[in-house]
Amino acid sequence: MDAPKPFQCSPEDTNSQIMQASYEALRKHGYSDLTVQRIGDEFPKSKSLIYQHYDGKDELLVALLEFLLEQLKTNVPTDDFDDAHEHLKALIEHTVPASFDSEHTGFMGAVAALRGQAPHDDAYREQFAKISAFHREHVADIIRNGIDQGVFRDVDPEQSAAFLTTAIHGVRNQRVTTGNDEPVETLRRELFAYIRIRLLTDTENGQ
Amino acid sequence: MDAPKPFQCSPEDTNSQIMQASYEALRKHGYSDLTVQRIGDEFPKSKSLIYQHYDGKDELLVALLEFLLEQLKTNVPTDDFDDAHEHLKALIEHTVPASFDSEHTGFMGAVAALRGQAPHDDAYREQFAKISAFHREHVADIIRNGIDQGVFRDVDPEQSAAFLTTAIHGVRNQRVTTGNDEPVETLRRELFAYIRIRLLTDTENGQ
Repeated sequence: MDAPKPFQCSPEDTNSQIMQASYEALRKHGYSDLTVQRIGDEFPKSKSLIYQHYDGKDELLVALLEFLLEQLKTNVPTDDFDDAHEHLKALIEHTVPASFDSEHTGFMGAVAALRGQAPHDDAYREQFAKISAFHREHVADIIRNGIDQGVFRDVDPEQSAAFLTTAIHGVRNQRVTTGNDEPVETLRRELFAYIRIRLLTDTENGQ
Repeated sequence: MDAPKPFQCSPEDTNSQIMQASYEALRKHGYSDLTVQRIGDEFPKSKSLIYQHYDGKDELLVALLEFLLEQLKTNVPTDDFDDAHEHLKALIEHTVPASFDSEHTGFMGAVAALRGQAPHDDAYREQFAKISAFHREHVADIIRNGIDQGVFRDVDPEQSAAFLTTAIHGVRNQRVTTGNDEPVETLRRELFAYIRIRLLTDTENGQ
């Protein structure tokens, strides 16, 4: 449910550079082999600046999650679609593409590595709760628009949005924690089938 | 998609005791604060036995995943249900209950903590791929039975099973990495709605 390229161009302010360095180091090394030293290796300025800003690896990584959520909020396309069904299909293509490139799997792997900390660390859980709520609300808005447009049935937008975003999370998390690309095409077909039979009105469905 | 109590009674053989100690230590401390020393604290015999069997924390934890998968295989109820729809509903009640008790969240948290290692470690990925395949095949068998019984529509059993197990994984992983119980009831309603509109034949659906 996330943009695969959180750092499209090199940032100039120190904090954004620390975030980018943390992201690159996490993507390369995973959580358990990550050290502030390794984050420093990706950072173009003096390592001491990192220690001035953050107390350690976990404080940095929780800040990275917060940073990624802010990026998400500003990058989400909201008004490019006249049709809610097209909007939802574009969201699926974006979050569950037919094949994930290495940039995308790298991003999902980095986020999944941080997710592993969440069951035993409140600060991580809080960030993941915010990220989930953001995705759910975003998709609920799309579904609500579709109902207003007469494209979608009169479903409970929150309930369908929770289900869709959870299923999409499941696909992405399983893809990157099993290394198996094969189920993705199957899961895309069933995601589109769910949208067709649960959301689309009979008129839109060609029935 | 897992039984919440992998150790129903205290095992007697040394390897099963090491597995139980690893599980208890992982559940308490999470991945990053886990040490072989802490696993030893949960182990009733001499700690040196752990070092005789395993080279370190990751080798132990990958073995734990393999052990849990074997438990799953022997614990799955296969022939207690005459009706595939009842079987599938029981599976949802078991994997996504209306409320998770602390034993269940502890189990899911331990597994989610190990999942965080998978994106950057082949050995973990291999175990999670096996676990996912096992769940998919198990649910595909139930759906296949339902089609034979005339209870379910003539869907692609593998495709629906992949989707259901992935959605269930999504619910469980989000529950334990966001700490938010609230979406669970909503997600259960939509899981049952999916089964009703996608799988159940019109006769079974009362239409």
